[in-house]
Amino acid sequence: MPSASPKRVTLLGSTGSIGTQALDVIRSHADRFTVTALSAHSNADLLVQQAREFRPAAVVIGDESKYAAVRQALAQQPETEVLAGAAALADVAGREDTDVVLTAMVGYAGLLPTVRAIRAGKAIALANKETLVVAGQLITELVKQHGVGLYPVDSEHSAIFQCLVGEERNPIEKIILTASGGPFRGRTMEELAQVTKAQALKHPNWDMGAKITIDSASLMNKGLEVIEAKWLFNLTDDQIDVVVHPQSIIHSLVQFQDGSLKAQMGLPDMKLPIQYALGYPERLPSDFPRFSFLDYPQLTFEQPDRTTFRNLPLAFEAMRRGGNAPCVLNAANEIAVAAFLRDQVGFLQMPDIVEECLARVSYLAEPSLDDYVYTDQETRRVALELVKI
Amino acid sequence: MPSASPKRVTLLGSTGSIGTQALDVIRSHADRFTVTALSAHSNADLLVQQAREFRPAAVVIGDESKYAAVRQALAQQPETEVLAGAAALADVAGREDTDVVLTAMVGYAGLLPTVRAIRAGKAIALANKETLVVAGQLITELVKQHGVGLYPVDSEHSAIFQCLVGEERNPIEKIILTASGGPFRGRTMEELAQVTKAQALKHPNWDMGAKITIDSASLMNKGLEVIEAKWLFNLTDDQIDVVVHPQSIIHSLVQFQDGSLKAQMGLPDMKLPIQYALGYPERLPSDFPRFSFLDYPQLTFEQPDRTTFRNLPLAFEAMRRGGNAPCVLNAANEIAVAAFLRDQVGFLQMPDIVEECLARVSYLAEPSLDDYVYTDQETRRVALELVKI
Repeated sequence: MPSASPKRVTLLGSTGSIGTQALDVIRSHADRFTVTALSAHSNADLLVQQAREFRPAAVVIGDESKYAAVRQALAQQPETEVLAGAAALADVAGREDTDVVLTAMVGYAGLLPTVRAIRAGKAIALANKETLVVAGQLITELVKQHGVGLYPVDSEHSAIFQCLVGEERNPIEKIILTASGGPFRGRTMEELAQVTKAQALKHPNWDMGAKITIDSASLMNKGLEVIEAKWLFNLTDDQIDVVVHPQSIIHSLVQFQDGSLKAQMGLPDMKLPIQYALGYPERLPSDFPRFSFLDYPQLTFEQPDRTTFRNLPLAFEAMRRGGNAPCVLNAANEIAVAAFLRDQVGFLQMPDIVEECLARVSYLAEPSLDDYVYTDQETRRVALELVKI
Repeated sequence: MPSASPKRVTLLGSTGSIGTQALDVIRSHADRFTVTALSAHSNADLLVQQAREFRPAAVVIGDESKYAAVRQALAQQPETEVLAGAAALADVAGREDTDVVLTAMVGYAGLLPTVRAIRAGKAIALANKETLVVAGQLITELVKQHGVGLYPVDSEHSAIFQCLVGEERNPIEKIILTASGGPFRGRTMEELAQVTKAQALKHPNWDMGAKITIDSASLMNKGLEVIEAKWLFNLTDDQIDVVVHPQSIIHSLVQFQDGSLKAQMGLPDMKLPIQYALGYPERLPSDFPRFSFLDYPQLTFEQPDRTTFRNLPLAFEAMRRGGNAPCVLNAANEIAVAAFLRDQVGFLQMPDIVEECLARVSYLAEPSLDDYVYTDQETRRVALELVKI
């Protein structure tokens, strides 16, 4: 096969779990990828180290107070421009000298740079699910309008995307998102009232950042994924099922109108969906450990406990309401998780805060981008009040 | 989507399990399929009934002694030509007024009509695995030479075929064929020495014809499928694994060079792969019962017992030897199964006969079509002698 010229990758959120694993993938395929730009929220040391290795055209440090230090550290590397702040982040997302933007920053902060990258015609490797949760309709319309590729990095959505390759003419009957169930699967409400941050941060299968690990423990992560899937795969609300599969081997499934199901499977390893999104449509060779049925003689499945883990039905409810409701859900959850990680609220207060915000923040049926920005700010204000009560 | 003109189907082996289910599929999609020709080995009554319903241009009854009765029964249906015998079967396989030939006859008898259909440029919906087992190299070369589609109907191979759609550029690392394990999974050699025909004919998951049901009980069916898969998917001998999966929900899997696995799943129902092969590349709607994880909270997997079920390693051995060895394996097995069904040999004598034939019949490294015909006849002669001992 003739080798194409390397893909130029802009990596937003390069010091987090997805970001560092993406750089592992890029390092393993140095003939296939180059790095155009890197950004980090606040981990200046690692950003500098990455910049020295990959020698990008630009780095952005989100935390402006660290700009001088990063600039100083990279003073001997004149080919790398050093920038800081949210506006610079959006600027690098739209740079001309890049082919694909991997959005691996955490939370709502991914929205504006993603919009900028799509408008600049860049393919998006989407690891920031909040972008689609908050503004799925707006983003998918922009993607269509600009004709860019949108390649999911979340393992579940990557699984579905992989199963849909070559099936473009065949309607989806439904999708089934698998969920590990997290560290608290099987626990009662009473037990959940007592759980600690340290317990919630121990995910049984996946090694991820703090925010998504808490979201996995509370099933909010699955709720956000349901909304993400709706937009990615153009589904109606009743075409999305969730099943708990504690081994995390079947990453998700698609059912077609003939009744046939296709599943994508493998060991839980985020490098695979990252590499798939960057390499698409080609599957690059890998030395990732291989799955064997000998190690997994039983794969098990159960219904999620929607009574105990209220975030999941709350997410379905926000999806059904539409408009700015998923934006409220997401912002309230970001505040609630941050408060839980600071020991300001208990595990069960997180869904309380989300539910209360959904009740209090004004509903907008057809929000503009500005409306999303306003909804996000307003929800954070309400949620912070609730944290302080 | 604009509706194409109906596909014209020739159905060889219309009165067997696959044949009758194929007619169910065609009946459900009368706007998409018409029947050009039907053939049956000996079930004249059902063939006549089918001909009256589907009004094909031709019917063939294999058993020539029944020709007069079929002709008489269809005397009032002048548009249907009535034919008999093996030569007529090959003739209808190559008819000009057909688009796809579904080869659903049992055993070696499928080889010559399939060759004829490929040479006439017809797409093949392949339900007769023996064709590829016996003469895989010859058939796949013919398929390439004539540029025809070859769509597997076996559920395992259909699963792999479905998983490979859209992955044309991505090399296969390996495939994993699932096996139910049959009714005797977990039995010892001593227990197997005593099993009866009636027990062997009770398959736990699949309702199939007698020959394939016995082959499933003895794991020869999986061995034949391994060889079939080698040719269908252009694999080396060490790229094919077998895992026992008693629930028969995951129909088989493909592993790509990035380590990702894709699986096709569903309730065990042959109508689905039949419909897929006839409708390809389109998935037609169906009312087949849908799979639910609620009904299958556990999917289990285990290694096949290659010591007790010797047919499986014998098939791998024949595949590795190549040449006419798989043809010997298949012919010896056809005689052994027929003898078992007549209570002439016990369950454990079947692999004995196969092994002995592989040792006795002359090996040919690069057999011609005539060599296959000779090998088949010679093996049957040797195997019949062994049955009589």
